[in-house]
Amino acid sequence: MPPFPWPSSVTLREVGLRDGLQSIARVLPTAQKLAWIRGAWEAGLREMEVGSFVPARLLPQLADTAELVDAAVRLPGLTVSVLVPNLKGAERAMDSGAHWMLLPLSISHAHSLANLRKTPDAVVEEIAAIVARRRERNAAIRLEVGLSTAFGCTLQGRVEPEEVLRLARAVLDLGVDRIGLADTVGYADPRQTAELFGAVRAIAGDRLACGHFHDTRGLGMANVMAALQAGETRFDACLAGIGGCPHAPGASGNVATEDLAYLFRSMGIATGIDFERLQALRTQVAGWLQGETLHGAIHRAGLPKSMQVAEAA
Amino acid sequence: MPPFPWPSSVTLREVGLRDGLQSIARVLPTAQKLAWIRGAWEAGLREMEVGSFVPARLLPQLADTAELVDAAVRLPGLTVSVLVPNLKGAERAMDSGAHWMLLPLSISHAHSLANLRKTPDAVVEEIAAIVARRRERNAAIRLEVGLSTAFGCTLQGRVEPEEVLRLARAVLDLGVDRIGLADTVGYADPRQTAELFGAVRAIAGDRLACGHFHDTRGLGMANVMAALQAGETRFDACLAGIGGCPHAPGASGNVATEDLAYLFRSMGIATGIDFERLQALRTQVAGWLQGETLHGAIHRAGLPKSMQVAEAA
Repeated sequence: MPPFPWPSSVTLREVGLRDGLQSIARVLPTAQKLAWIRGAWEAGLREMEVGSFVPARLLPQLADTAELVDAAVRLPGLTVSVLVPNLKGAERAMDSGAHWMLLPLSISHAHSLANLRKTPDAVVEEIAAIVARRRERNAAIRLEVGLSTAFGCTLQGRVEPEEVLRLARAVLDLGVDRIGLADTVGYADPRQTAELFGAVRAIAGDRLACGHFHDTRGLGMANVMAALQAGETRFDACLAGIGGCPHAPGASGNVATEDLAYLFRSMGIATGIDFERLQALRTQVAGWLQGETLHGAIHRAGLPKSMQVAEAA
Repeated sequence: MPPFPWPSSVTLREVGLRDGLQSIARVLPTAQKLAWIRGAWEAGLREMEVGSFVPARLLPQLADTAELVDAAVRLPGLTVSVLVPNLKGAERAMDSGAHWMLLPLSISHAHSLANLRKTPDAVVEEIAAIVARRRERNAAIRLEVGLSTAFGCTLQGRVEPEEVLRLARAVLDLGVDRIGLADTVGYADPRQTAELFGAVRAIAGDRLACGHFHDTRGLGMANVMAALQAGETRFDACLAGIGGCPHAPGASGNVATEDLAYLFRSMGIATGIDFERLQALRTQVAGWLQGETLHGAIHRAGLPKSMQVAEAA
């Protein structure tokens, strides 16, 4: 095998404040969320999804999203994202000052109905309305569509790659700024990941700009590697591997931010992250989330001695 | 990226009875070990390392190795391996009827002294003596050398690839049947794995025939994938991810056999393993090992619905 042309850097987006906290019943106080955002920024993370503009009665955990955006956009160099489920949420995102709004488009018909009470094609129409409204308002905010359940679904089982491609084309044609592929429920394998990222990149080019993986079945890191080899250089992750999906039973555990930071550091691929600061933040957040199931491997084992020596040298 | 030429099949070797049990203080009764061997064979595993010919006072957990070999070699189609630390152990292996003896050669000077009380070069001399003795006895048993701590060492830190290549050449020149690369302490990363497997394969060809990974820092599956892409098709694994190394603090957790079986099944790469039987065996063995720290992801989450549907169709 010839030497693989690894990228020199990748981008990690911390999504624990949204994907992580929405799957946990407890409501983290706003002050702790602000400390999390600031701590992640101080550790070198430059992209964060800080919340979601959904009705507070549905997700009281994320009711303070506007306040978080307001603080987060003041941190120099930080790109702030929020999830929006529909046009109404998008209006709030446009009001908020966030840089990006993320709209999940479930490829699985069953998951789409459970999550947004709309078919995938109805969600595409909603995205069209959001794009039109953004133009009307002349808003600077950018729009990313996350193609979720792209690798399979706990409700309907198999998801056809052709359907991923059809819906990817539909939203690309609408002019969304970028799309991502999400293994919402931890069904992906490395071969499937490499093939689907390759196929979608063939139609999306650089507008395919996010890999979102869950470690539910132990393949999270292997899937990240497969996507990386298929040209992906931006990845979502949650500190301490929290997260899941309320409409996808068993979907526990995003890939842990600190594990991804370790993976890339070990390979000599820059992330801009200060690993020790990130570990300290993980310890702090774990303290706030006592009693919740946390994940991640590097936190338990610590850095290899080989890496410590290399750093000290 | 062009479609990757994945192999159509791979071989998993169950090493839980040796690498797993030697790291656990309790002594599993011989009857349970025999049930484990039989259960793994019934689940389709065709290679097993069943024990170690070390003095019983050092590893009382493995004192019944000769009896296990005697039973295991009667299972049709099963290739039976035993670990040997030196010429004395090799004599016992030659007496035992085992098909393969595995000798660990630590690339790390510090680990070699801790593990075998010999420098790596003294171990090479011991291997020369074993090869000579095998010829003298005209024994059919084959010899595999596991190049351990090949990716780093908890005692000395960094391990130089040049040293791996030097010692690989030395034992290949002695005429050992095959060699493997072992990440004894869970320090490897996918890039390093791809590069080292590539470099060693360049001098060893098909005699490089084993990847042995620990999941200590969460990269076990990603490293297996990297080795696979670098041409490796045989992997060691331990049921329930038990294992480690008594002389490598923190080296907990071989990659779990059931997780590897799931990885390859999800990618459509044959292992010959009946996944449901393997999961049932895992449950049985976990019952015998109650109180011990077990690992593995697929056991918790279960097969994806997409895979169940594909199977039923």
